[in-house]
Amino acid sequence: MAAAKIDHALERTIFFSDAVFAIAITLLVIEIHAPELPRSTSDLAQIQALAHLVPNFVGFAVSFAVIGMFWMGHHRAFSLATHYSPRLLGWNLGLLGVIAFMPFVTSYLSSNIFQRVPAIFYCVTMLAAALLNMKVNRTATSAPMLDENASPQAVAYVQQRSTSVVLGAATAVAMAFVVPAFCQMGLMSIPIWLRLLTWRADRRAKA
Amino acid sequence: MAAAKIDHALERTIFFSDAVFAIAITLLVIEIHAPELPRSTSDLAQIQALAHLVPNFVGFAVSFAVIGMFWMGHHRAFSLATHYSPRLLGWNLGLLGVIAFMPFVTSYLSSNIFQRVPAIFYCVTMLAAALLNMKVNRTATSAPMLDENASPQAVAYVQQRSTSVVLGAATAVAMAFVVPAFCQMGLMSIPIWLRLLTWRADRRAKA
Amino acid sequence: MAAAKIDHALERTIFFSDAVFAIAITLLVIEIHAPELPRSTSDLAQIQALAHLVPNFVGFAVSFAVIGMFWMGHHRAFSLATHYSPRLLGWNLGLLGVIAFMPFVTSYLSSNIFQRVPAIFYCVTMLAAALLNMKVNRTATSAPMLDENASPQAVAYVQQRSTSVVLGAATAVAMAFVVPAFCQMGLMSIPIWLRLLTWRADRRAKA
Amino acid sequence: MAAAKIDHALERTIFFSDAVFAIAITLLVIEIHAPELPRSTSDLAQIQALAHLVPNFVGFAVSFAVIGMFWMGHHRAFSLATHYSPRLLGWNLGLLGVIAFMPFVTSYLSSNIFQRVPAIFYCVTMLAAALLNMKVNRTATSAPMLDENASPQAVAYVQQRSTSVVLGAATAVAMAFVVPAFCQMGLMSIPIWLRLLTWRADRRAKA
Repeated sequence: MAAAKIDHALERTIFFSDAVFAIAITLLVIEIHAPELPRSTSDLAQIQALAHLVPNFVGFAVSFAVIGMFWMGHHRAFSLATHYSPRLLGWNLGLLGVIAFMPFVTSYLSSNIFQRVPAIFYCVTMLAAALLNMKVNRTATSAPMLDENASPQAVAYVQQRSTSVVLGAATAVAMAFVVPAFCQMGLMSIPIWLRLLTWRADRRAKA
Repeated sequence: MAAAKIDHALERTIFFSDAVFAIAITLLVIEIHAPELPRSTSDLAQIQALAHLVPNFVGFAVSFAVIGMFWMGHHRAFSLATHYSPRLLGWNLGLLGVIAFMPFVTSYLSSNIFQRVPAIFYCVTMLAAALLNMKVNRTATSAPMLDENASPQAVAYVQQRSTSVVLGAATAVAMAFVVPAFCQMGLMSIPIWLRLLTWRADRRAKA
Repeated sequence: MAAAKIDHALERTIFFSDAVFAIAITLLVIEIHAPELPRSTSDLAQIQALAHLVPNFVGFAVSFAVIGMFWMGHHRAFSLATHYSPRLLGWNLGLLGVIAFMPFVTSYLSSNIFQRVPAIFYCVTMLAAALLNMKVNRTATSAPMLDENASPQAVAYVQQRSTSVVLGAATAVAMAFVVPAFCQMGLMSIPIWLRLLTWRADRRAKA
Repeated sequence: MAAAKIDHALERTIFFSDAVFAIAITLLVIEIHAPELPRSTSDLAQIQALAHLVPNFVGFAVSFAVIGMFWMGHHRAFSLATHYSPRLLGWNLGLLGVIAFMPFVTSYLSSNIFQRVPAIFYCVTMLAAALLNMKVNRTATSAPMLDENASPQAVAYVQQRSTSVVLGAATAVAMAFVVPAFCQMGLMSIPIWLRLLTWRADRRAKA
């Protein structure tokens, strides 16, 4: 097999992954069912019907951002890879499986807002995605997949970022036990973890 | 990272966007539920059952055209871009989120036809899409993304067109308050706005 | 704009079309709802439950073949095109809209089997797809889109084939009025129409 | 038509296949409906509601792995092909049709767990996919599609693997009659069949 052919295998894997990300992110909306009210309904009743769906809208927006974040990380990691490795396939498929599962956990959480079990279930799913994502991104930014010309800084950033997503998801799981309604906010700690990891790496580099 | 690699990142973003546009446009049909009548049903009863779905058919066609219009604008703008910029990702993801939300607003409007709240909700969603679309198209047709060989006329046209879509969507929102049943017709003002903008630009160029 | 850039616009249109075809063809299955029987159910009752779904299975298979046929035609026509033309976009979007509508008409026909109105509705939808398909394929295999090196025989075959699909769909519409249950069989006349058209073209070429 | 053009037809077929695989694998989740419990529900009741869905979760995971396995086989076979052949289209479309049907059989089996008919139906569907898969993979790794530089070992492996998937699916069908609840485990025999086939081929090569 020629080198160009191996790259083609990588491209097809990236393509398949993009498609699953895109479908999962777009399927989120299916779980929101439009209210159907009689024609004589007042504006107020319509607004109340929409207000009932606010948890679903928030759930859609949060999960859209979460899947989008994982896609962007995948995108960033694979922009540094130019070679294909069959070792990638299994882990990547696992990651896609968890991403494809997101519409279910989103719908479950939106329909049972402020409850502990759905919140833990959602955040544990995110943690599973974060762990698989870390494994996939590390594989993509290591030999033999890594592009020979990739800058070490870019590689370090990808790996620090995927670690910080794991730490953020773990924070969300921990918060789910205490304040289930706001567990997803644990993800907001990702930039803090990222800064900590970058700072530690910088200190090590200087030492 | 080589230049070819950066372009690959752009291609993957375009691909992901195309996939979300394609999925959202095809999911519109899921919200139309086929009537199931007993086998002894008369032709007339079948036709009446279909007639009840006319708002859904119209909603499907209008939203198909709207998403198609946004896709064509995206297509036109990105055909002028050859470089990738990470600044694009967030805005583009926001645009895709609103596009992915379209099946819901379409279903809500079709199930509550002639009512003010669903009409406003639909048109405000379109306005949000138009604003994000304008931002994304301007980013794609500005430095550093713009192709060095892109004609200034083509760039000006893309930017005038995305502005006219915002003005058309704003017209639709305004109409939604007054004649909710026909608010989507506000979009028909887009060619008028486009002509006005082109005419103003021409006058300025001459002056 | 460089020539390579124009081809890229063509590729993106092809890609978008492929995605809509693929999504519509895969969404067909969503309309078939799995029976859910109590655990004590006998094998016979399960088989009866499946037997009730036979119209849905047949509908799935037929519509899968129909969409697949349109996709293959699109594929064949565009394999002869190397240039992009903005004239294509509107017609192509119309074709994709009808294809995206197929899951609905399939579900409607499968749920109201042996009835005239759903049969006519299905076959008229197919005729609309066939007409748009003919327009799109002719545009793709004419100047300015046609590849300079495309063989005239291949172009003639694509155009004859798209005409025969229109004639086959028209036959199906005619049959829907008389024998609604078997209207889709009208499509089986496509090879006959194709042979007739080829034969006529050959005779003309000789004359 | 130039050679590059023919390859483009192959690429578009691969792309379309990838899209159908990706959509089918992601649609699996739609069939799992999130429980919606009142806000006063205890944690225990939520866990019980989730426990009721365990067959659906297992069905999702198994079918995800099955479709993923077929996709990986397709991927591996087509990485050895560089030419297009129209003979491929029909068989490939048949394979995609069965893959697109998987969400239905998954949902049917998950909703009627431990029963013989749904188990047989599921496993027969897998056997149909395996047979079509073998045909498609053999076509892709034979003349005229096979890349001139493909290693004979890689070709032999692809063909042995697709045969072992057929034997594994046949094992699953046989098991479905005896122990319906665990019929999918028949697929676990695939590595055993693969080893047997490789061993037989090695012995022949030596003789």
